[in-house]
This record gives sequence, structure tokens and C-alpha cells, in this order.
Amino acid sequence: METFFSFLARRIDDCSSLLCVGLDPHPSELTAPSAEAARIFCLRLIKATAPYAAAFKPNAAFFESYGAQGWTVLKEVISAVQEESRRLGSMIPVILDAKRGDIASTAEAYARSAYEQLGAHAITLSPYLGRDSIDPFLAYKEKGVFLLCKTSNPGAGDLQDIPITFGAQPAQKPSTASKRRSSAIQNRDSMYLYEHVAFLAQKWNTGDNIGLVVGATHPEALVRVRMSAPDLWFLVPGVGTQGGDLETTMRAGLRADGKGLLINVSRGISRAADAAAAAAEMRDEIINIQYALKH
Amino acid sequence: METFFSFLARRIDDCSSLLCVGLDPHPSELTAPSAEAARIFCLRLIKATAPYAAAFKPNAAFFESYGAQGWTVLKEVISAVQEESRRLGSMIPVILDAKRGDIASTAEAYARSAYEQLGAHAITLSPYLGRDSIDPFLAYKEKGVFLLCKTSNPGAGDLQDIPITFGAQPAQKPSTASKRRSSAIQNRDSMYLYEHVAFLAQKWNTGDNIGLVVGATHPEALVRVRMSAPDLWFLVPGVGTQGGDLETTMRAGLRADGKGLLINVSRGISRAADAAAAAAEMRDEIINIQYALKH
Repeated sequence: METFFSFLARRIDDCSSLLCVGLDPHPSELTAPSAEAARIFCLRLIKATAPYAAAFKPNAAFFESYGAQGWTVLKEVISAVQEESRRLGSMIPVILDAKRGDIASTAEAYARSAYEQLGAHAITLSPYLGRDSIDPFLAYKEKGVFLLCKTSNPGAGDLQDIPITFGAQPAQKPSTASKRRSSAIQNRDSMYLYEHVAFLAQKWNTGDNIGLVVGATHPEALVRVRMSAPDLWFLVPGVGTQGGDLETTMRAGLRADGKGLLINVSRGISRAADAAAAAAEMRDEIINIQYALKH
Repeated sequence: METFFSFLARRIDDCSSLLCVGLDPHPSELTAPSAEAARIFCLRLIKATAPYAAAFKPNAAFFESYGAQGWTVLKEVISAVQEESRRLGSMIPVILDAKRGDIASTAEAYARSAYEQLGAHAITLSPYLGRDSIDPFLAYKEKGVFLLCKTSNPGAGDLQDIPITFGAQPAQKPSTASKRRSSAIQNRDSMYLYEHVAFLAQKWNTGDNIGLVVGATHPEALVRVRMSAPDLWFLVPGVGTQGGDLETTMRAGLRADGKGLLINVSRGISRAADAAAAAAEMRDEIINIQYALKH
């Protein structure tokens, strides 16, 4: 059966890219903010960067803020990725960055919204409400979820970095790669909340449909998360404008197979004079680092 | 200056009610699910229950799932509360139950959406991303936020009940009421994550604009949260259909001044043959319990 992550892996094989292009029509990106300007911004970006994109990630907030019109545009933007994919002959997944999280009966409605109404292939979710808030999304076997684990913002630590007294330690035998990494970590006695989230996600991922959001702004956290969740895909925001370094990020987070990271870039591409060239360059840079780390 | 909670307190004085009426047009509530059916469902409920409602709480998910049309209906529903308020001569606050949570630049867009685009007076937020994800909402001085603390669903414990090793203990001198309550608690040595969230919220509430979401399904948790956040308003879902008992909830969570709880009821009212009578009865039951606990 096709899962989200087998779909993603096929696209990555097609385009040799771990680049996820963020579709964030932030008002500061638009000369005169409006739903229509957001539409033009996104369609231009999709057209320019599709050949280099392993995935696209529109953030719901920048559409919601234009009300019903913004919601119509969000749906058009997701359709536009499908059209561009067909033109290229290689389907590109769309991850809806919505960070939803509610009790099960409500989560069902959010899942219908993201998967059926909008046609997204995956969604970002908050883990705060626990497993039964995720289940209605997992019920869509061919779709995927990325749980917020360690986010890229300065306040991430307020909750995510709280040391916890229990929370099963990762049961996995560490790979050589993760043994090498662990030498960089001073203190494995304490486990942070975000590591417990990673551990739960790895445990819950029996259907190949759970990934994690791990920010590039905390490379040491990325190492720890990789140890707790050796098999999962990480969606990684924070490279570029937010300060994350690409090589450090890849060194810290790549899976043993040299994959497992989806590097999201938004402003670094959308603000470039030539978005296509910026995306191509980013794709190439990722390939070069992948190659260097393998050899 | 008017704050959300002074606005809420005035409405509560006007209607002598701590009842929050949930506007959840869940498909199972509608004979033929559609945005239009959701609109009719909500307007009927608003008209019937407004005299007894301290606040209304529409859940965004049940509107989003109808796409742009649903978003238009959500805005109409919020406007309808304002119209009904004017007719009654007492403004009724609207709390948008959206459980959003994103990095600051994105949170700004969500805040614009909830407060400017939709016209809600308060919003529910996830605390997982920390303080800077809340700040853009707090920048609207006259609006309010309710942070998810201990939710009413079965999986709430997966993260929220994790015992943590640090996290400042509540610094407040316990009131007589909370001293009485604390005797019911076996073990105050450990602090759960949700208590830390409550403690942070109490600390961050310098602008009288932060409340908490605390489910009625865990009365012992409600006692603990009240100890960590003696001054805050709690929005309490879970009474009725989800199994929470009203008197137990009020005994566990009321503030020393006999207020501080906003009891949310959705299906218990919307599914009643006579929604107005069900809301009136619930309002009266709350008043009776308030009275009994005071004497």
C-alpha cells in the first residue's frame, strides 16, 4: 500500500532533493496584502521551484487571515501543486502546516478539512493532547502527520526543554552513526519533553505515517531527537532566515540511510531575486553535503 | 482599560451565569451536513440560549471542514452573537476554540484572523511552542487567550500528566479554600506538566488576558490547577456528554470569590428538545451549586 512516506520517498528519488519549499504569503512578502496577492505569490513560487521541490508546505495561518477568500486561495494553491506535478510527470506532496490538535471528535473535522476539503497529503499537528487527538488523522492510511517535537522559535524551550523524570528511554540499539553523535552529548541522564515526544512518535509509527517537526536552530536537539526516533522523517524549518546552518543540520539529523530530513526553506527562496535559481542552488547544496557526509 | 476578563465579568454580572454555550455544528448534529446547515444550527442555538450564556464558544474545526463557505458561516455566527447581544442590551463575548500555536511571525497571522477577520474576543491556544507563540495574541490588550492546560480527552495524560523534575512550585500563599482542597491531594511532591503550564500562565498573566482550558473529566487535576493558578479563569469543557459532573467540577475549580469557572456545554444543550430550557436549567443548576458552596 502507498503511504505518505513511500509517496515522499518516490518524489525524492525523482528529484534528488530533500528541499521542502514553504508557501508562506506573509504580509511582508506582498506589496499590497490580499488573498489575491497571496495567490499570485504562491503560484509564482510553485511554478519557479517545483522541479527542485521534494514537497511544498503552505502555512494555513497566512491564508486564514484573509478569511473565506484566503481559504479558497489555499485550496487553489494545493491544486496548483498537483497541476504543476502532472506537468512535470512526478507528483509532489503537499504538507499543510496547520499545527492543529483537538479532542478526537473535533480532530475528525480537522482531518476532513485538510485531507478531503483541501486535498493536502500530510499535516503538522501539536502533540499536546496526546494519542487520541492524532488517531483521526492516522485513520487516513495514505496520508501523513508531522508532530511538533522541538520547534525553531526562541520560546520553544518553555515547555519542550523541561526535563522529565520518567518517559521510557529509547529502546533502540543505537546505530554506529548515533553512537558517534552521542559522544557530542554531555548528559544523557536527563530526558527532555521533546525527546519523549520523539520516542512516542517512533513507537506510534506502525503505519509509516508519522514524522516530526524539528527546528534547525537547535542542532544538539536534532541529534537527541534522531537518537529517540532513528527511523522517522523530520520536517526541519529554521534554516536560513531563522539562523539554522544547513551542514550542521544535516550532520545532526540525517538518518543512517542519508535521508530522513526534509529541509524547509521559505523566505530564503521567496525573497531571492530568482526563486528558481535559489531553489536549485539549495537543492545542489543539500546533495553536496549528503555526498560529503557519505564519504 | 477594558480587558477580556473585565468584559466577561460584566456579562456574568448581567446574566448571573457561568455557562458557556459551545457552538459545535458536528456532522452528527445536522440532518444533512453542509455549511448552510451549520449556520442554521448555530443561529438557532444562539437565539435560544443567549439570555443564559455568559459566553459562546464556536469550534473552528466544524466550520473549516466546509472550506471557504464554512469560514463565511463562522464569521456570520460570531456576528449573530453580537446582534443578539445588542437586542438583549448586554454584550456576550465569543471565544474562538481554535487551539492554534505557531512561531511568532505566524501567530501574528492567526491573531489577525481570530480577532480582526472574525471578530472573536478570545481564542484557545496550545502552549507547546512557549511564550513567544502567545505574545502576538497578548498584543491585543482587550482580547483574551485560554491556554490548553489539562484537556478533557482520554489521551490528555500522554504528555500533560508527565511528572517533571523542575518547574517552580506555586509561590502563592494558599488560600483557606485551597488549603482545604489540598488535603484531598495525596502527593504534592511531584508536579505534572499541566501544573507547570498553569503556573506559567498565572505568571504570564500581567495584562489580565490569560485563562486556562481545564477539562471537567479530571476533578483532581482541576484542584491542582487551581492551586497553581489561583487567580485565573478556567474554560471547562467535558461536563455532561464527556462524563464530567457539574458539582464536583465546581467544588474542585471555583475561585475563592465563587467565580473563575466558565462551564462549557455543547451537546447537552444542542441535543435537548428545548435548547432554551436546557440552557436555563443549566444556568440555574450552576447558581444553586454556587450558593450551596458559599453557605
